Amino acid sequence: MKKYLMKGNEAIAEAAIRANCRHYFGYPITPSTEIIEYMATKMAKVGGTFVQAESEVAAIYMVFGSAGSGKRVMTASSSTGISLKQEGLSYMAANELPAVVVNIMRTGPGLGGLGPSQADYFQATKGGGHGDYRLIVLAPSSVQEMADFIIDGFDLADIHRNPVMILADGVLGQMMEPVTFKEYEPIAVDKSWATTGAEGRERNVISSYNLQNEAGETKALYLEEKYRKMAEAEQRWESYLMADAEYAFVAYGTSARIVKGAVEELREKGMKVGMIRPITLWPFPKNAFTPYFNQIKGYMVVEMSAGQMIEDVKLTVNGIAPVEFYSRQGGITPQHKEIIEKFEAVFCTQGVFA
Amino acid sequence: MKKYLMKGNEAIAEAAIRANCRHYFGYPITPSTEIIEYMATKMAKVGGTFVQAESEVAAIYMVFGSAGSGKRVMTASSSTGISLKQEGLSYMAANELPAVVVNIMRTGPGLGGLGPSQADYFQATKGGGHGDYRLIVLAPSSVQEMADFIIDGFDLADIHRNPVMILADGVLGQMMEPVTFKEYEPIAVDKSWATTGAEGRERNVISSYNLQNEAGETKALYLEEKYRKMAEAEQRWESYLMADAEYAFVAYGTSARIVKGAVEELREKGMKVGMIRPITLWPFPKNAFTPYFNQIKGYMVVEMSAGQMIEDVKLTVNGIAPVEFYSRQGGITPQHKEIIEKFEAVFCTQGVFA
Amino acid sequence: MKKYLMKGNEAIAEAAIRANCRHYFGYPITPSTEIIEYMATKMAKVGGTFVQAESEVAAIYMVFGSAGSGKRVMTASSSTGISLKQEGLSYMAANELPAVVVNIMRTGPGLGGLGPSQADYFQATKGGGHGDYRLIVLAPSSVQEMADFIIDGFDLADIHRNPVMILADGVLGQMMEPVTFKEYEPIAVDKSWATTGAEGRERNVISSYNLQNEAGETKALYLEEKYRKMAEAEQRWESYLMADAEYAFVAYGTSARIVKGAVEELREKGMKVGMIRPITLWPFPKNAFTPYFNQIKGYMVVEMSAGQMIEDVKLTVNGIAPVEFYSRQGGITPQHKEIIEKFEAVFCTQGVFA
Amino acid sequence: MKKYLMKGNEAIAEAAIRANCRHYFGYPITPSTEIIEYMATKMAKVGGTFVQAESEVAAIYMVFGSAGSGKRVMTASSSTGISLKQEGLSYMAANELPAVVVNIMRTGPGLGGLGPSQADYFQATKGGGHGDYRLIVLAPSSVQEMADFIIDGFDLADIHRNPVMILADGVLGQMMEPVTFKEYEPIAVDKSWATTGAEGRERNVISSYNLQNEAGETKALYLEEKYRKMAEAEQRWESYLMADAEYAFVAYGTSARIVKGAVEELREKGMKVGMIRPITLWPFPKNAFTPYFNQIKGYMVVEMSAGQMIEDVKLTVNGIAPVEFYSRQGGITPQHKEIIEKFEAVFCTQGVFA
Repeated sequence: MKKYLMKGNEAIAEAAIRANCRHYFGYPITPSTEIIEYMATKMAKVGGTFVQAESEVAAIYMVFGSAGSGKRVMTASSSTGISLKQEGLSYMAANELPAVVVNIMRTGPGLGGLGPSQADYFQATKGGGHGDYRLIVLAPSSVQEMADFIIDGFDLADIHRNPVMILADGVLGQMMEPVTFKEYEPIAVDKSWATTGAEGRERNVISSYNLQNEAGETKALYLEEKYRKMAEAEQRWESYLMADAEYAFVAYGTSARIVKGAVEELREKGMKVGMIRPITLWPFPKNAFTPYFNQIKGYMVVEMSAGQMIEDVKLTVNGIAPVEFYSRQGGITPQHKEIIEKFEAVFCTQGVFA
Repeated sequence: MKKYLMKGNEAIAEAAIRANCRHYFGYPITPSTEIIEYMATKMAKVGGTFVQAESEVAAIYMVFGSAGSGKRVMTASSSTGISLKQEGLSYMAANELPAVVVNIMRTGPGLGGLGPSQADYFQATKGGGHGDYRLIVLAPSSVQEMADFIIDGFDLADIHRNPVMILADGVLGQMMEPVTFKEYEPIAVDKSWATTGAEGRERNVISSYNLQNEAGETKALYLEEKYRKMAEAEQRWESYLMADAEYAFVAYGTSARIVKGAVEELREKGMKVGMIRPITLWPFPKNAFTPYFNQIKGYMVVEMSAGQMIEDVKLTVNGIAPVEFYSRQGGITPQHKEIIEKFEAVFCTQGVFA
Repeated sequence: MKKYLMKGNEAIAEAAIRANCRHYFGYPITPSTEIIEYMATKMAKVGGTFVQAESEVAAIYMVFGSAGSGKRVMTASSSTGISLKQEGLSYMAANELPAVVVNIMRTGPGLGGLGPSQADYFQATKGGGHGDYRLIVLAPSSVQEMADFIIDGFDLADIHRNPVMILADGVLGQMMEPVTFKEYEPIAVDKSWATTGAEGRERNVISSYNLQNEAGETKALYLEEKYRKMAEAEQRWESYLMADAEYAFVAYGTSARIVKGAVEELREKGMKVGMIRPITLWPFPKNAFTPYFNQIKGYMVVEMSAGQMIEDVKLTVNGIAPVEFYSRQGGITPQHKEIIEKFEAVFCTQGVFA
Repeated sequence: MKKYLMKGNEAIAEAAIRANCRHYFGYPITPSTEIIEYMATKMAKVGGTFVQAESEVAAIYMVFGSAGSGKRVMTASSSTGISLKQEGLSYMAANELPAVVVNIMRTGPGLGGLGPSQADYFQATKGGGHGDYRLIVLAPSSVQEMADFIIDGFDLADIHRNPVMILADGVLGQMMEPVTFKEYEPIAVDKSWATTGAEGRERNVISSYNLQNEAGETKALYLEEKYRKMAEAEQRWESYLMADAEYAFVAYGTSARIVKGAVEELREKGMKVGMIRPITLWPFPKNAFTPYFNQIKGYMVVEMSAGQMIEDVKLTVNGIAPVEFYSRQGGITPQHKEIIEKFEAVFCTQGVFA
């Protein structure tokens, strides 16, 4: 297969086109701008539709409209722009509309800075919008995964009729790595629910309004069960050197790339450490942890935030072993050395490992 | 003190005016509309400023502007409208701007319905916007508390330079109960940071932009420490019949009103049950739980959602005892009988309590 | 050629598609709504792009963007919506962007009513937006002309690189008449100025910003000369029974349909009357009047407004003969009888005609 | 009276406050920005309300709202921003709402430039918005008049229940001249129509919607008659050296300042020239011309546009004498010398004047 040297943001855009995404609506914001630029240029060439919308709010509702007509559609933004889309995302989940939404995180809160961050984990996984709903959240940690997860994301969105978020950061978005694009094989999906003109059939209606509380509860229970099944079926993760590990790091995305190096250095020092890398942030991959419950003496979560995923790790571990934390913030990435020092300070009794 | 018979929404608006709030910007949405209507009528009479904004997004940024000039300012909306304000709330927290934001929750996700709900707990407490930030979230469970917490809310906002959210629902907003308004005693707050024209002094600048990552991390660590101190200082809760309780319900707002009745019925049956009612949802009142860790054999969380606060309860209890759940959704409130049945089904061994 | 029985609004939409218009951006408003509905359905089928925009302002700037990339693009609205587009129209004229904009007039000012009106003549012809600019304004008076003028409009827009407005009213928009669509023969137009990606060529820049006053004046004089040439080349009108006329009616659109009947009745009574029907409202067809300057003793302008086109008639006639006026307003169309009575009251000396 | 040295824009803002304007809503744009800046600083000090709106469209509808509640309210913008307000202005005229709207013209069309211009005359006087409506348009030509006309403007707006526009340009807005503010004496105006809460009286309704055509026509005729009376009552102009003039210049605003100098130079050369300076652009001061119909052999209109007011001059003169034109555009102001040369080239037969 042909190899391309591309930025992560470009790989995302190219992969979307190869996954038959022909509608893109967005608004430019650093560090996600290469995605909209790529789409602005390429969509016309493949006969697609591209609109730079008036605002982030307008963009997400154009995505809503296209998704409602059964088209593969994508948008991308960064942190502050994604906040503006929260109402739309809640509406899309409520209406079971498939789409791929990319968040190339920058630092926050507020205007923040352009550096990389992982501080939108809560927003992505707990639902930044109102009501009980869930997005499938995929966290790539390489340019190759950015391409792959876009293609997977469109399929998952169609299969579950649910928005899928790709959660990455500016390091991954700007990084150039070799990438190959797998031949996309269209999946069979029934989109008979889509509003496509109603010629020769009953009208389809897309609405999340429930005037009667009973209907509202029926809908809520339906969604709850749908999310339960998705949570069961779609957990994804990478286990790294976990077979004999006594201590486990937990990290995703850019942090996981760095932690992997720290794990290797600690192994060289003789320490039995491994890493669980959640790939789906929602559903959180609890199944990645259960096989090691009797084996792991302590966990260390590494995030570029004040501590968000750590809550899901604690909820999973549920008090069986301590869950520690290391982070850098404000656009600064953690370093091997720091991670190792923190690990040793927390878990290594005097003389044993030191 | 004079007693008034008022709707919860009206009590909120009246209390705000008594707490010297003279700026209100909002957009009407059921079931919070009485608040904006009350303000539309009363603000002119007290020499205040009222604007029905072009959109929810416009409204929150008007709140931003007024707060930045050091004024007491409020807005209110319901669920879907609050989602549109997430960017603005992240900006306000990042810029440390005090304001009171009211969410009279309706059902979601999407357009949902007009019935009561508690499904915006995650959005309110984990940060629906981007980045690491926190709102103080107060959850009243009576019209009297709606009035009281507004006044407390303005003080807390000023003291901590942080937005405060009042999280209630349509049952509380529409319910009429007697209410008294305590004489408001202005607190001394230094607002020398406000942008008020810079005559005879250095310019103040309100900005959340950090071009340098080092400055970004310094800011992030500053906020983290601020939130840690707030979490320590501001936990509020009600303990109901907990002294000898062996089982504890956990519920807030409208749910807590109902659970209280169920607790009383269970007590009449001889069961040693109590209730912890979180009043601050953030900071979550962990201190309410610790005194009872050795005493409580099981917790039951009751929410009008698919289960959101239960995560904070589990994070607090950390595996020491089981945490069970009961809920109604879609605008339906749980009933005593249902709660009792669920409690007995889960916790009562044969013959012991039955 | 095949005959279709269609509403005027539908004929407009169908004609646009036949004239290779593949981009439509708009916002629905009575009495133009059939146009956007038709486009919503048909654009997908012909591989075009359709967006119902967030607002009238958003819609005109989407038209700007598509026109800038050299595509044939159309929008439509009614009166109040067209007012919101005035900034955009000024920008499009300044940037010499071809597009067709349809105004199916309703009554104004303000929200007005849904009835037909001709009270947007000034806005269309004098420039409702800022600065010196001109739109070519075509005023159909039948469903057939609505179809024909759309096709002509796209050609005129491309030839002159200028927005073209179709100015009609709700009577014409809702009226059903037989219509044939001439085979569209694409004209050769150089669009090398369009912003299409700049591959293998210099970048094109579309901008109306002139920081230097000298450049501003050069641009202004260029446009002035362009409009002068357009005014010379593009005047269109219908002369009806003018050869021996001593009195002339002047009317356009729906009014002209009615006046034609009045002229016929007056002719039957022996009065030598004719009608000049401006088809281009800008450029105003002065050339229609000059051949009759020595012959016409009086003009009567009939409009469904308080008197707007009458100014252009007076400017043309320049005091040579009296210019009288008859109108109905508020959505009411004038009647033959009224027009004849007014004509006789004004122009017929006792006994001569009566 | 105290003299102040102020920019025209500042004089406008200060005069508004002295005329009891306590509400200002706007959006900044060069060359009108000093007005909004002044208001941002001063409104708080006088207990007024100031909002920098989300957009020009939002600003004009805030003006609508305040005016509807009977308050004195103002907004200001420049050319392109005024275009965005056309819908709102039509609505305000239709609803008979008094307000003062300032247009400090920059060059257009489109983004244009920051230099002075008079190319928004048509927009201001013919109605840039939809439907038959009129604004009173006052054109100051000094800083003193900018102050005076604001005060007059608020009175005229209240007396006629109609929006009043102040039409000036960047030269006047930026120019510093001595100015005195006359003591404002509030006029008695009945505002019992305002929507102020309806306590103890019938509800007032402000609406421009007419579902029935008959009601629509009644309203249209009412407005037509109102405008006719305003046109009769409110014409204002300055006649300069017209008593024995054989030739007359016609100019307003900045152009009139310059023409006055040219007139003086021509007088020194012995030429009997004068100037009519329209102060109200609508109603156009026809009464300024009629006394001289038998005396003036030729008119020369001087504008900083491609020729807009010239149409009203021609409509007034109606062919009795030739109407010539001189202009500079794109932000360039005409010079004495140029004007004199043009005058001589057009009107001076050989040897007579030269």
